Amino acid sequence: MKYIEKLREIVGKNRVRTSSPELYCYSCDASQIKGMPDYVVRPDSTDQVSKIVQFANKHKIPVTSRGAGTGLAGGAVPISGGIVLDLSSMNRILDVDIENLQVAVEPGVVHAKLNEKLKPYGFFFPPDPGSSAMCTIGGLIANNGSGMRSVKYGTSSRYALDLEVVMADGTVINTGSKTLKTVAGYNLTGLMVGSEGTLGIITKAVLKIAPLPKARTVILASFENPELAGEGVVKTLSSGIVPSACEILDKTAIEALNAFDPNLNLPDVGAILMFEVDGTEGAVEEEAKLIESACSSLATNVKSASTKQESEELWRARRLVGAAISRLDPNRTRVYVGEDVGVPIKEIPRMLKKVREISEEFNIPIMTYGHIGDGNLHTGMAIDVLDDSQWDSLNKAGDKIHRTAIELGGTVSAEHGIGGARSEYMELELGPALDVMLNIKNALDPNNILNPGKLGV
Amino acid sequence: MKYIEKLREIVGKNRVRTSSPELYCYSCDASQIKGMPDYVVRPDSTDQVSKIVQFANKHKIPVTSRGAGTGLAGGAVPISGGIVLDLSSMNRILDVDIENLQVAVEPGVVHAKLNEKLKPYGFFFPPDPGSSAMCTIGGLIANNGSGMRSVKYGTSSRYALDLEVVMADGTVINTGSKTLKTVAGYNLTGLMVGSEGTLGIITKAVLKIAPLPKARTVILASFENPELAGEGVVKTLSSGIVPSACEILDKTAIEALNAFDPNLNLPDVGAILMFEVDGTEGAVEEEAKLIESACSSLATNVKSASTKQESEELWRARRLVGAAISRLDPNRTRVYVGEDVGVPIKEIPRMLKKVREISEEFNIPIMTYGHIGDGNLHTGMAIDVLDDSQWDSLNKAGDKIHRTAIELGGTVSAEHGIGGARSEYMELELGPALDVMLNIKNALDPNNILNPGKLGV
Repeated sequence: MKYIEKLREIVGKNRVRTSSPELYCYSCDASQIKGMPDYVVRPDSTDQVSKIVQFANKHKIPVTSRGAGTGLAGGAVPISGGIVLDLSSMNRILDVDIENLQVAVEPGVVHAKLNEKLKPYGFFFPPDPGSSAMCTIGGLIANNGSGMRSVKYGTSSRYALDLEVVMADGTVINTGSKTLKTVAGYNLTGLMVGSEGTLGIITKAVLKIAPLPKARTVILASFENPELAGEGVVKTLSSGIVPSACEILDKTAIEALNAFDPNLNLPDVGAILMFEVDGTEGAVEEEAKLIESACSSLATNVKSASTKQESEELWRARRLVGAAISRLDPNRTRVYVGEDVGVPIKEIPRMLKKVREISEEFNIPIMTYGHIGDGNLHTGMAIDVLDDSQWDSLNKAGDKIHRTAIELGGTVSAEHGIGGARSEYMELELGPALDVMLNIKNALDPNNILNPGKLGV
Repeated sequence: MKYIEKLREIVGKNRVRTSSPELYCYSCDASQIKGMPDYVVRPDSTDQVSKIVQFANKHKIPVTSRGAGTGLAGGAVPISGGIVLDLSSMNRILDVDIENLQVAVEPGVVHAKLNEKLKPYGFFFPPDPGSSAMCTIGGLIANNGSGMRSVKYGTSSRYALDLEVVMADGTVINTGSKTLKTVAGYNLTGLMVGSEGTLGIITKAVLKIAPLPKARTVILASFENPELAGEGVVKTLSSGIVPSACEILDKTAIEALNAFDPNLNLPDVGAILMFEVDGTEGAVEEEAKLIESACSSLATNVKSASTKQESEELWRARRLVGAAISRLDPNRTRVYVGEDVGVPIKEIPRMLKKVREISEEFNIPIMTYGHIGDGNLHTGMAIDVLDDSQWDSLNKAGDKIHRTAIELGGTVSAEHGIGGARSEYMELELGPALDVMLNIKNALDPNNILNPGKLGV
């Protein structure tokens, strides 16, 4: 029996696609990594996923799982061909269990939809990726996604209580339970989170949820240059405040946002820090004052949003910055390369300085913004994509940004994933720990069928 | 060359012990598990640990690492003989790096000493085990220890940023970095935390720290019976409050405490919930009121501590409860068996009811207390240790408690560890996930020298 017939037998005829235009749609994500699949299969149940993987394992066919394809590192791109397992139709919210502080979802549930569902109960799922409106929970967990609020709320890893996972031989396991705390056996949940589909395929997730804070406000601090802003972050956090977000916008980002929406009228300074604090009304007020006082000696100006509306507008602006860069120069397009390094907090000012030097060296505008409270910086580079020499400069600049982060004791990826885009740095960053990862990969997926060529394993 | 000579060559003569009295001291922990080592070795550096493990691996000698031996499940007991690696002399605090929100410590640092060191900086390491005054950070991490404040602050796993680990072949790896957020590769840090020394030996830990809250207070709620208290927990947490602790004391625990210290004068009721809230002054006040209101319809009385001193006294009392059981009946001794099950929050009332039934069935007083906000219950049983039939009843009651927790979707161990004491339940609790764990164990420790016979692997 041909592979395609067997696949159709498992999932039904309409759920296997092999036409070139359809395959092409699955050959990329939001990164520069490309790879054509041989089959796109859209399973509807764990049982179907298990059977597909079992079949693929027998015939050593690569299986790359995919949610919404919003990834920025090629994690969902089938660089070795084979099957793309599109899990986006497994998109049911299976259980909203407020009393147990958890939800159970299928992997294809869109992040924002989950939070819409939880809002009336006064709860939310805290990881907060920029791609919330499109990305799926399965992809988020497979990449240990986080976003703006991880400085207080942590990454997806903190919320995964139990994952149903199809292993490389088709076995279905549960990595945890409905209990909020357990030490029974190895933390397989934690191992699966962030493993980018290389160890197993997540078919169901039980996630801890958190109460929505009763109040939130935004504090805006202006600085002469990004390095001073970096110092402001170090000073604020080490003085004992845990904001729910701590974001930076550099001069380029401020210009881009003001060009995008002149009503924003952000101050024309070297860098802005946007802090968010949340909690009870009283806590929010007290913490906003503490942040103002921590930043006052370094900033040219610090002020709290005076209304809820002002807070929300500032936050909306921050969310738009990734796209706003296009307003600076219509001939340049943002290309995602080297865009989410992380460094220890104390190294933030130095990293910011290095990024400015790299921008000058390669003559590429770099808009720096991001979750600076975690040491996580987005370095958005924009080039004329029709000019080959600019691509070359872009790749060199990206490479230098990655290596600089490692030199400063940091990481090439704080949240977007390694995928196919950053595997080359794994040996340098991880040292002999990479061998341990390879051992685990080999033990759990001996035929290397699960998302081969990713994550450096 | 004899084994002992080689070991002495590695660590020096005085750091290898083989006399019977000394070996005997290392043959147990705070559980009922026993096993005599052949050698006790007290290394002083990572390099020594690496050489010992390399040597042991070559000769297939079991290596069981040990901190303070305060474990309640036999994790540090060498049930297959071989080498006990006593890491308690590797007890240096290597770096207090407030600006990076982290500390670096050797595994033998005592938990309370670390927090003493951090206090002047206004920071703390939040996991809060009952054995704080004795237990070591290495043991805490190897067991993913937590304690009273995990309902808000999580377990050790949340704080481990980077572990230096000696693997079974002697290779030294670093599982993470100084960065607060990274997605580079598998989460080996999370895999090592809670692996009870079966995958590697932790020789250094870089830990995230948190700011000490500016204020704390305690709220005491009295209930007619433990089941109503359980409902109070469900109602409080699902109404959106995250207390820093949420503890239960049943009637037996209340009696024990009042006998221990009559000044406490705890109300003579069926169960007490003790909530702690922390944060800014304003937040503490608001949250205390919210808890009072959430519990008011179920409790016979709810009141907040009126002074800081009252709060501290109540908390001190809670910390003593494990020992206070001895005051109830001088002929009975508390024996740690089946003592830290966890269940989903909604199942707490049912679990409490089952525990009372088990107490009656086996005619053993069971004092129930613990971290009920995580669904984590301590069921302290006391017997006349000179009466063999009571030992039999105790083991049967413990077994029934464990199985009941699993039946309710819970775990046999929420925080004390599996060790040798609970391995028999791993297959029942974990199902096919246990095979995945065995695969990992086999891949990383093919000669099974690292703490063999523990954790069900």
